[in-house]
Amino acid sequence: MRMVDIIAKKRNNEELTKEEIEFFIKDYMSEKIPDYQVSALMMAIYYQGMTSSETAILTQAMVESGDQIDLSSIKGHKVDKHSTGGVGDKTTFIVAPLVAAAGIPVAKMSGRGLGHTGGTIDKLEAIPGFRVELTNDEFLSTVNEHKLAVVGQTGNLAPADKKLYALRDVTATVDSIPLIASSIMSKKIASGADSIVLDVKTGSGAFMKTLEDSKALAHEMVSIGNNLGRNTVAVISDMNQPLGYEIGNANEIKEAVEVLQGKKVNDLRTLGLELSAHMTILAGIYSTYEEAIKALEELIDNGSALEAFKGFIKAQGGDISVIDDLSKLPQANFEIEVKAKSTGFVHEIDAESVGVAAMYLGAGRATKDDQINHSVGITLTKKIGDKVEDGEVIAILHADKEDVTDVVDKMLQAYTIEDKQAVPNKMIYEVIRD
Amino acid sequence: MRMVDIIAKKRNNEELTKEEIEFFIKDYMSEKIPDYQVSALMMAIYYQGMTSSETAILTQAMVESGDQIDLSSIKGHKVDKHSTGGVGDKTTFIVAPLVAAAGIPVAKMSGRGLGHTGGTIDKLEAIPGFRVELTNDEFLSTVNEHKLAVVGQTGNLAPADKKLYALRDVTATVDSIPLIASSIMSKKIASGADSIVLDVKTGSGAFMKTLEDSKALAHEMVSIGNNLGRNTVAVISDMNQPLGYEIGNANEIKEAVEVLQGKKVNDLRTLGLELSAHMTILAGIYSTYEEAIKALEELIDNGSALEAFKGFIKAQGGDISVIDDLSKLPQANFEIEVKAKSTGFVHEIDAESVGVAAMYLGAGRATKDDQINHSVGITLTKKIGDKVEDGEVIAILHADKEDVTDVVDKMLQAYTIEDKQAVPNKMIYEVIRD
Repeated sequence: MRMVDIIAKKRNNEELTKEEIEFFIKDYMSEKIPDYQVSALMMAIYYQGMTSSETAILTQAMVESGDQIDLSSIKGHKVDKHSTGGVGDKTTFIVAPLVAAAGIPVAKMSGRGLGHTGGTIDKLEAIPGFRVELTNDEFLSTVNEHKLAVVGQTGNLAPADKKLYALRDVTATVDSIPLIASSIMSKKIASGADSIVLDVKTGSGAFMKTLEDSKALAHEMVSIGNNLGRNTVAVISDMNQPLGYEIGNANEIKEAVEVLQGKKVNDLRTLGLELSAHMTILAGIYSTYEEAIKALEELIDNGSALEAFKGFIKAQGGDISVIDDLSKLPQANFEIEVKAKSTGFVHEIDAESVGVAAMYLGAGRATKDDQINHSVGITLTKKIGDKVEDGEVIAILHADKEDVTDVVDKMLQAYTIEDKQAVPNKMIYEVIRD
Repeated sequence: MRMVDIIAKKRNNEELTKEEIEFFIKDYMSEKIPDYQVSALMMAIYYQGMTSSETAILTQAMVESGDQIDLSSIKGHKVDKHSTGGVGDKTTFIVAPLVAAAGIPVAKMSGRGLGHTGGTIDKLEAIPGFRVELTNDEFLSTVNEHKLAVVGQTGNLAPADKKLYALRDVTATVDSIPLIASSIMSKKIASGADSIVLDVKTGSGAFMKTLEDSKALAHEMVSIGNNLGRNTVAVISDMNQPLGYEIGNANEIKEAVEVLQGKKVNDLRTLGLELSAHMTILAGIYSTYEEAIKALEELIDNGSALEAFKGFIKAQGGDISVIDDLSKLPQANFEIEVKAKSTGFVHEIDAESVGVAAMYLGAGRATKDDQINHSVGITLTKKIGDKVEDGEVIAILHADKEDVTDVVDKMLQAYTIEDKQAVPNKMIYEVIRD
């Protein structure tokens, strides 16, 4: 078998066989196939796409290139949740304790990563004492006891995806739906969950800007999951503005806890309940969507979800007094108000600009070696549809330096204020099961 | 400027600028841009093509990556001829002395190369004593005195093309008309001629199998030549069977000399006159096609073309007694007849199979280190349209070993004999000037 023939076959829009895909991944990982052949194949896939079968085979081959987490010693049906990423997305801190309270064991591995704010792991480290590194035994026993543990990614999950992604990133071959789908799903499949709920963001602040692309990506990922024996459901959710009102690390923990305490942060609570409902249904805990939503609301209202959160934070060494008194979370030195320059209604809040503003403050990493500042961030005080007076505060910056003119400018650019009343987009567009 | 942006731009079907193309070639040659980015760009070009302007800029950038031959010390308008390659193609040995006799200085650099038979240089070495390595002074003075010299390629012509071609060969990105055209033309432009006549083969034995593809390639090459200040004409000629009757090294010299001696080898003489006519018109020697053909036929008939050939052979050390007595050219030890297995008319002679048969005999190189046997080859005794009786000789193998069953089989496969009368294709399909 020769790689050049595999490239030519895909180039000519013929379907690759299981043997060909496995050969390519295996020999690429053992460096028998060079980068320059793989990048040509990636570009051919960019144009020709892949069939569902090819995509599932590629995903499985990437899973088998590395470690696969064995969660069999954890009792119960394990359901994982994955978001394609957006600004202000702190749903994990709501969903994980909520479904844990409903009885699903949540054994979550998360990354740090680059971006506007830290990853899940970085945000949790805003809680004093919280340990993200557990031994395997500690991890499993924490899940069995508290139904919930979150650790930094250990092991070597889907290294073929890592290698491929690094190559795609520098060869303009990232924007291929089957390649994006297989990349995401390879890590999820390797993480060992029985079922998977995907939160596929759509809109100006999402990787997928159009509903059409978001749906295509969701269908592709659900197809991979189902093909590889994992029940998979995707929720298409809105990312035309940041999620909730808080962006940062401590900021996002605070807002998630407030939702767990019962605060009705509209979009955030809606999305948290939606994702949790599908997870609990996949796990067989509730039968219908209506039943699930009702039960999950009750688990928030009666404090069970908050208790589950505190139990797991404590088990991983975190100081739970900061949960009871959120003002004890890391606080930035300065609060700077961003004031509207005109009167009207908020029509748009460009999520990416808000994300970049948060990164300017120090909430995220621009490069791998950057340090995260857990205390800085942004609080939005106005969202799409809100009325704003000229000079009224639309956002508050939590900064560790006084001169943040560039961040203020970035925030003013992010907001579009117009005369006419605006209606925010709905939070959930569609649920995709096949 | 970043290579990844250039790849993305081409991927999205936007036109690359001069700066971008020059940057990519320059930094690729200095190894600042890795192969894996270039192969991705080549695949994007495979799908999106290139505009005439992009193709000319790429060609010029490849020319500038290496040496450019300076022919300015040779008096007169220099015209080069290039064939896209086929089996039995010995037109150079007819065209070069013929146009030299007409007054065009021919300063030809040729390669050895891999394939069914040797390259131009290898074939000339079938003449005892012929030297393909001349000093630069010898080369120029031979052209000035005899109007004709042929040497092995010296200098480092279009190294960017060499590097790109090697990469395309292993990444399934060879089959792109703008890339093929720029590859051929970069070497021609670097060789320093004022005008260029291209012999673009079409048919089962050519690189371009269809007339449509051949025309597209011809238009692209003519466009590059004209864009870069070289008057360029392309002739589309037939390659649905080997050219002439002889395939090999000494064999092909023999047949070319016979044409120069006045023998009317139909297709070969037709093509030789056609290419020579366009060359002499480009050089301003004749004004019309009719005038050129008439004058060139006269130069064959009165022996001037043969004299030009002998003069140059002698000047480069060759033994011209073998020209006067062609039986003194290297002879193989055995002559093996290939006999038809049925009665009918020749409908097809698969040129590639005949070429492979010649290579089996030792006439060509399968790998770079193979030695060429100048004496072996194939004489076709029947061509398309000829009547054949069962058991009649259709070809003669000139071999240096007695057991050539595999070659006989290959030749029998190459011929298709059917009941119905067949008509050979016309030799010249079209002349392309823009």
